[in-house]
Amino acid sequence: MQMAHADLAERLLAGDVRALARAIRMAEDRDPEVAGLLRRVRGRAGSATVVGVTGPPGSGKSTLCDQLIERWRSQGLKIGVIAVDPSSPFTGGAILGDRVRMQRHATDTGVFIRSMAARGHLGGLAAAAREAIRLMDAAGRSLCLLETVGVGQSELEVMQTADTTVVVTTPVAGDAVQIIKAGILEIADVFVVNKADLPGAAKIYRELRDLVRQTKGSADWQPPVIMTSAVSAEGVEELVGAIDRHGELIAASGELERRRVARLRAEVEAIVIERAAERARRALREGTMKQELEGDLRDVDPYALAERILNGHVKEAAG
Amino acid sequence: MQMAHADLAERLLAGDVRALARAIRMAEDRDPEVAGLLRRVRGRAGSATVVGVTGPPGSGKSTLCDQLIERWRSQGLKIGVIAVDPSSPFTGGAILGDRVRMQRHATDTGVFIRSMAARGHLGGLAAAAREAIRLMDAAGRSLCLLETVGVGQSELEVMQTADTTVVVTTPVAGDAVQIIKAGILEIADVFVVNKADLPGAAKIYRELRDLVRQTKGSADWQPPVIMTSAVSAEGVEELVGAIDRHGELIAASGELERRRVARLRAEVEAIVIERAAERARRALREGTMKQELEGDLRDVDPYALAERILNGHVKEAAG
Repeated sequence: MQMAHADLAERLLAGDVRALARAIRMAEDRDPEVAGLLRRVRGRAGSATVVGVTGPPGSGKSTLCDQLIERWRSQGLKIGVIAVDPSSPFTGGAILGDRVRMQRHATDTGVFIRSMAARGHLGGLAAAAREAIRLMDAAGRSLCLLETVGVGQSELEVMQTADTTVVVTTPVAGDAVQIIKAGILEIADVFVVNKADLPGAAKIYRELRDLVRQTKGSADWQPPVIMTSAVSAEGVEELVGAIDRHGELIAASGELERRRVARLRAEVEAIVIERAAERARRALREGTMKQELEGDLRDVDPYALAERILNGHVKEAAG
Repeated sequence: MQMAHADLAERLLAGDVRALARAIRMAEDRDPEVAGLLRRVRGRAGSATVVGVTGPPGSGKSTLCDQLIERWRSQGLKIGVIAVDPSSPFTGGAILGDRVRMQRHATDTGVFIRSMAARGHLGGLAAAAREAIRLMDAAGRSLCLLETVGVGQSELEVMQTADTTVVVTTPVAGDAVQIIKAGILEIADVFVVNKADLPGAAKIYRELRDLVRQTKGSADWQPPVIMTSAVSAEGVEELVGAIDRHGELIAASGELERRRVARLRAEVEAIVIERAAERARRALREGTMKQELEGDLRDVDPYALAERILNGHVKEAAG
């Protein structure tokens, strides 16, 4: 196994796309061996720019991402994309999405695209996405794009992985109130009003601009609101510029460093939670704890069991 | 503090409603002292029947619960209700809901109703709901009703606390496909088609019945599909009967015991996760780990940090 890892790590660092795909699948499957792989590529990751794009289904987010990818490609950047689709365990959406998206950039090895589905629970998706970004980074993708649908808790966690977060809305999708409610105002660095040719675009533009002024009036960075029409590529140049400016500002101000430390903390916390949950599941199904759960349940103190598991005081069954 | 707990526990066990309210608030706030309180009332909880009722907003779920409460009250049962409203951090819905619901049973001390909001994350809501049920049980509520809105991951976790789960739908709210997608087919013990006087009721009734036959054809218990009209109380008697029958069947077959062991396991796991996350947050902000996160982040191995935290190998800063 060690040999296989060394080989996989070497191919990954050389930018081999199949090795990258395999490594990301390991992260997505929450394969414990991914720890060893990440250890091997450590030091070679940490330089990529991570841009997050989120917005409701139907906001034209994917078309917009395509436009962004085209601009970045023309600048010579190698790109990695993770598209998170939490609904896919039921609909198979991720697999379909992969195919549809792949077609456009199928012949360009400078663009690597993966869809990722929510599996299990408890932050597993966020952990997998973070590891995928790190793997793409190590494989030489200098720009990583993270695309998520919707605004649930898990998408917010995923988005905390980005250096710069773009929130896409449309005149149809909703108003500023929705954005406040969903808690995405806090994570937005750039707002996009896509489908700007539709009626109501000016209204939501004004709402968002006022919202930004009211809430972030004194901040270093006031999220710009950009009108785009992804189909005609209108406004995309401006969006690329805003993402660049935000990246430069946070690098200069130290905010980028703060975000990356926060991200690493979140990553460690997620691993601790994942391992602790595993430890609990195992402990509760064997040895003395299994016996205790076969007795009178009213005698069981769940807090005491939890403490014993956390402190590693799990005994074999008495016989 | 110990004295205060002893006093609180004593009043709780005597059925004091204020003590119960305070204890549930502690559980909701994830107050670590709730562990000591639960320890004190241990052995006095574990006999209540827990019925879960879930369904989309607007399905008439609350009116139906009112009807159920009335029947159970006429049988002389003391009732505790936890209404979980995950949207309330934004809308204040839980507080409003409490008031509206309280009015109806305001003068009846045999009905204790609490709304509970999603706070924080990572299963905290499910843990709080489980503890609230246990506290109500210890306070002599022999029937605990757990009402949740919607079908998110956290509601599914909450519902796993119930002995018998009732899934409410309406001709308007959706079809069988929605129920399969949301993953609630697995947790439903009884289906209700509420607002049975609306057009389309017969269609969804047939869909659900076919769905049950196809998926649970050979099981001991095939979830019945009951048509109700909560406003006219039509079908409520039948629903009470189905809940009773399900409760008797699972008690006789050993399934109740299995569910309770599973619930206790889930409870211990949730506590382990909560404590491990706390430990991680603390460890990452002090001592040597804090220093490591101030250095070159590319040198940091998140898996190694996680292992050290889990194994309690967290050192003070070197100076």
